[in-house]
Amino acid sequence: MTYCVGVILESGLVLASDSRTNAGVDQIGNFRKMAVFERPGDRVIVMLSSGNLALTQGVVALLEQRAQMHQQNIWNTASIYDIAYLVGETLREVQKRDGPYLLQHNIDASAGFILGGQIYGERHRLFNIYAEGNFIEATQDTPYCQNGEIKYGKPMLDRVITYSTGLMEAAKCVLISFDSTMRSNISVGPPIDLLCYERDSLKVALQRRLGDHDSYFDNMREQWGAGLKRLFSELPDPHWNI
Amino acid sequence: MTYCVGVILESGLVLASDSRTNAGVDQIGNFRKMAVFERPGDRVIVMLSSGNLALTQGVVALLEQRAQMHQQNIWNTASIYDIAYLVGETLREVQKRDGPYLLQHNIDASAGFILGGQIYGERHRLFNIYAEGNFIEATQDTPYCQNGEIKYGKPMLDRVITYSTGLMEAAKCVLISFDSTMRSNISVGPPIDLLCYERDSLKVALQRRLGDHDSYFDNMREQWGAGLKRLFSELPDPHWNI
Repeated sequence: MTYCVGVILESGLVLASDSRTNAGVDQIGNFRKMAVFERPGDRVIVMLSSGNLALTQGVVALLEQRAQMHQQNIWNTASIYDIAYLVGETLREVQKRDGPYLLQHNIDASAGFILGGQIYGERHRLFNIYAEGNFIEATQDTPYCQNGEIKYGKPMLDRVITYSTGLMEAAKCVLISFDSTMRSNISVGPPIDLLCYERDSLKVALQRRLGDHDSYFDNMREQWGAGLKRLFSELPDPHWNI
Repeated sequence: MTYCVGVILESGLVLASDSRTNAGVDQIGNFRKMAVFERPGDRVIVMLSSGNLALTQGVVALLEQRAQMHQQNIWNTASIYDIAYLVGETLREVQKRDGPYLLQHNIDASAGFILGGQIYGERHRLFNIYAEGNFIEATQDTPYCQNGEIKYGKPMLDRVITYSTGLMEAAKCVLISFDSTMRSNISVGPPIDLLCYERDSLKVALQRRLGDHDSYFDNMREQWGAGLKRLFSELPDPHWNI
């Protein structure tokens, strides 16, 4: 399984993905699910993959490979909306190619992407591209997208994230959201790839891989867990007589 | 949708269910999903339903109706294991009767139950009965069962609940778990039916319906939400330079 989150803020973007993939419980591997296309001053495009690894790798590989060859590609497209369309079309192409063979073995041929970034001349944007190749754009009302194992980590995003949340505060919340997910589901696991983008900078501000032992993340998880327990114990027990 | 939780503790049982049912977004109703069979001094049996409402109501109605008629029924069975089997068999019976007709309209004919209680001469027990009619028993290692929309509310159960947690503390944690779920999913909603059972008492200790405005639950939710935000803001932001 997978967990991916993208957040769009007044001040920029935060994107993060885990690295665990599994085919059954005994075939567990680490694969990077974040692809970054950066040309400073022109564009930063980040893709987070979820779903069938052969499909998502195929989509990213074709996008990279065709960057020089095709009329419209990820480097010359003038809007992120059009890139979302390009990703969706490439996903449909790979699904059409491989899907029937996967179906013969009852393998789910679904995959999805979170796409965020900014192109010179346009605002920064965030899209959620579905398994069917269609997509939605995140808005100020709902300024985040999730993909994969989304439910465990959603409550804290709902409580904290608004469009005006600061970049580092949002990164912190995204990591809390990963903590909740990793505690409740072993199919989501480190390292976590985290990327922060500052609006209108047209370059990656921060890209970091948080492995099994990252001192900030480890301390934060510990402090958060202990704090939750303390907070919980401070809540009054129900006053109903038993 | 639905959210149901059962917890087994050294000191007893806590069981809770929401009341929202929906068939699409415009047909939302309130139905009690907790059924209680109590004969003080002899047995307390609690069933929490999830899934297709016609199926679960059918199962509970047949169990009630047959209580006087059948050789083995919910009032004379000597073990909760056997009652779990009886519930599973009744579920299979109703599915066999209605399932093919539901299938004609692509309606999901699945339903499940959480079954908890104690019968004189036996320890208190907790079972999770699946849509297929088979079931598992909760143990000291994993002392809770959930059903329905389970993921949002799982992290806090994982953090707090152990077999030695006190009854009222567990009830508080179950309510926090409902709070997280109701915030992130509108298909789970009040009133919440909550029942506490003290081990070896063979009578219901507390049964309470928490409606839209319950002062304890409202205050607890508010205090919890404010506490989470405070706790979150006290965590250090990432120290990585941007």
